[in-house]
Amino acid sequence: MSEQLIEKVMSEVMKKIGDSQPEAEKKELESSVCFKGNNLTEFVGTAIGDTVGLVIANVDRGLHEFMKLDPKYRSIGIIGARTGAGPHIMAADEAVKATNTEIISIELPRDTKGGAGHGCLILFGAEDVSDAKRAVEVCLKELDRTFGDVYGNSAGHIELQYTARASHACNVAFGAPVGKSFGVIVGAPAAIGVLCADTAVKAANVEIIGYSSPSTTSYSNESILLISGDSGAVRQAVLAAKEVGVSLLETLGNEKAPSSTTPYI
Amino acid sequence: MSEQLIEKVMSEVMKKIGDSQPEAEKKELESSVCFKGNNLTEFVGTAIGDTVGLVIANVDRGLHEFMKLDPKYRSIGIIGARTGAGPHIMAADEAVKATNTEIISIELPRDTKGGAGHGCLILFGAEDVSDAKRAVEVCLKELDRTFGDVYGNSAGHIELQYTARASHACNVAFGAPVGKSFGVIVGAPAAIGVLCADTAVKAANVEIIGYSSPSTTSYSNESILLISGDSGAVRQAVLAAKEVGVSLLETLGNEKAPSSTTPYI
Amino acid sequence: MSEQLIEKVMSEVMKKIGDSQPEAEKKELESSVCFKGNNLTEFVGTAIGDTVGLVIANVDRGLHEFMKLDPKYRSIGIIGARTGAGPHIMAADEAVKATNTEIISIELPRDTKGGAGHGCLILFGAEDVSDAKRAVEVCLKELDRTFGDVYGNSAGHIELQYTARASHACNVAFGAPVGKSFGVIVGAPAAIGVLCADTAVKAANVEIIGYSSPSTTSYSNESILLISGDSGAVRQAVLAAKEVGVSLLETLGNEKAPSSTTPYI
Repeated sequence: MSEQLIEKVMSEVMKKIGDSQPEAEKKELESSVCFKGNNLTEFVGTAIGDTVGLVIANVDRGLHEFMKLDPKYRSIGIIGARTGAGPHIMAADEAVKATNTEIISIELPRDTKGGAGHGCLILFGAEDVSDAKRAVEVCLKELDRTFGDVYGNSAGHIELQYTARASHACNVAFGAPVGKSFGVIVGAPAAIGVLCADTAVKAANVEIIGYSSPSTTSYSNESILLISGDSGAVRQAVLAAKEVGVSLLETLGNEKAPSSTTPYI
Repeated sequence: MSEQLIEKVMSEVMKKIGDSQPEAEKKELESSVCFKGNNLTEFVGTAIGDTVGLVIANVDRGLHEFMKLDPKYRSIGIIGARTGAGPHIMAADEAVKATNTEIISIELPRDTKGGAGHGCLILFGAEDVSDAKRAVEVCLKELDRTFGDVYGNSAGHIELQYTARASHACNVAFGAPVGKSFGVIVGAPAAIGVLCADTAVKAANVEIIGYSSPSTTSYSNESILLISGDSGAVRQAVLAAKEVGVSLLETLGNEKAPSSTTPYI
Repeated sequence: MSEQLIEKVMSEVMKKIGDSQPEAEKKELESSVCFKGNNLTEFVGTAIGDTVGLVIANVDRGLHEFMKLDPKYRSIGIIGARTGAGPHIMAADEAVKATNTEIISIELPRDTKGGAGHGCLILFGAEDVSDAKRAVEVCLKELDRTFGDVYGNSAGHIELQYTARASHACNVAFGAPVGKSFGVIVGAPAAIGVLCADTAVKAANVEIIGYSSPSTTSYSNESILLISGDSGAVRQAVLAAKEVGVSLLETLGNEKAPSSTTPYI
């Protein structure tokens, strides 16, 4: 009977430990935008990927110069994250479409908390702080969607992005032709990204806008393909890359590579 | 009664697990300098942040050239860490003040073991090995203090540094004017660092010495502000940035961001 | 008796937790090449260090240009990993010796999943896909050996590589003279690597081919020494560095730093 008791306790304990760990992992990519929790007037909200959204109504003039900001922007919106750059750039693309702001700069730290990719630092410029704030809000809200085709497991990640009409953020970050359909294909480790890229361009008649590998992308372990063209073709190319990439990632990691939120493409 | 027993066991087990995890995390930043543990004559000691201090009495002449060392330094002191660069540079600053050594080079790998910041590699040059060793010892001992205003949680970190009188290491690493009061403000993720920087320069009348973002600082996920000026003003600016930064970090990480050791500013 | 019971349960639970953690760590560096698990014709296999081997029979012409590949290579072999660059370059060296392929490019992302070093992306070029595939297979199979002198613990790693006769991959990646004995000495954190380098060149009469530190090697926290010369001397230098490096790493991490597989030097 004591043996039985031990087994029972053990099973409860292991359940508790097992339960708590996925929770901890999920925490990094929890898909909920939060606009509460801090009383600073500069605080806008938080979102998936340890993303924080901030706003500065009047950037200090001295700092303005050191940050090399265009003097016409008194106000800036700030989006930064530990995990994710593509999702944030696509979200920022929607934000500039929807507001009277421009992209000042997009930087890609090597991060993802031990993962294979980037974090990000995106600055929006505006003449009025309400515009900057609105852009940050839109960006935070879009992230649940734009993380939808980020598939990951312990071995790496596959990221797909697609828009029917690229705007200013995609242009600044990726050189995407404004107004045209545009897609991003990321594979990590970079070897998988190479095959994703080849698969994509063979799957549909698209134009290659750019290709990056570790030495040209902040030393992340990613290969990145950027494509433009007919909307249907871009989407088809992206989806073909996804199938191959996720399949390889699952083989390499020997575990499923689920979507971070809900696929949108 | 068996239910009661299980609960009792469970609570003890969970306590044990709970206890052991902070321990593991603290391990990376344990605040004890250790000058024992290795019989190599080149070994000086270890400290917080996986820091190791070493000394070479006579650097091999061939290697000397490949390392591009000034021929006048026969001996070098070596400080390296997985976690931390600012604390080590400030500690090295005290070390050069206290000894007959000079800073040869300061390099900032992208590290912190999956965190958002840097590790470091700092070389002291000396004509005599005893000077080099003394510099490394002083540096190791200062680290407990200089980690005092590093505040961290799972979302990132805020680092503040302040000295009433900058010396050679701050000059080499940051361009700080020697002999003047100097402060460093780091926020990670970089978005938080931007707001810290703006807050600091608005809080007191200080001179901006430099500003770095991910693309100019080894792709870490940090924004860094360097300030100089009147001692009281620098301190005030640094403390204003700390308040905002730690508050945002705690909101983002949804947990406290305690000091790594004991605040000194 | 209930106390006794609790102790018994506790000990079983803690054992279970203790057991499961090394397992998780080992998972990243499990030493088994696997040529199964994916039906894609481009998939070749997986190996230690989250390594994946792939092959593309006919790289898309448009992508070919963006990847800046020599037009003469229709087929490419791809080796990529999250953890390890030296082991993969040494393995690739054997692969080019054994097959009709050439090294197209070797890139070193900053990775190792939160560790101090690199991952890699290596491309083999071939006119025929069977050659490319063979190169990838040889490379994957060599990895168990070339990870043999990678010693690691939570504080960092020491990596030694040695070949009696360097070939094309060592030449492309490290500038090693083809046909001559060649050695690689890596220490992480970089401070330990500096001492390893000095120890190596003092231990035997070898020629220094190169020396890298964090700012010249993708911001990894490593110092790297490359040596050439008489076969016995190179081996002696490498082994002297190993002794010092592993000893320091074990002191710093306060735990053993075992080989990833089985030492080969």
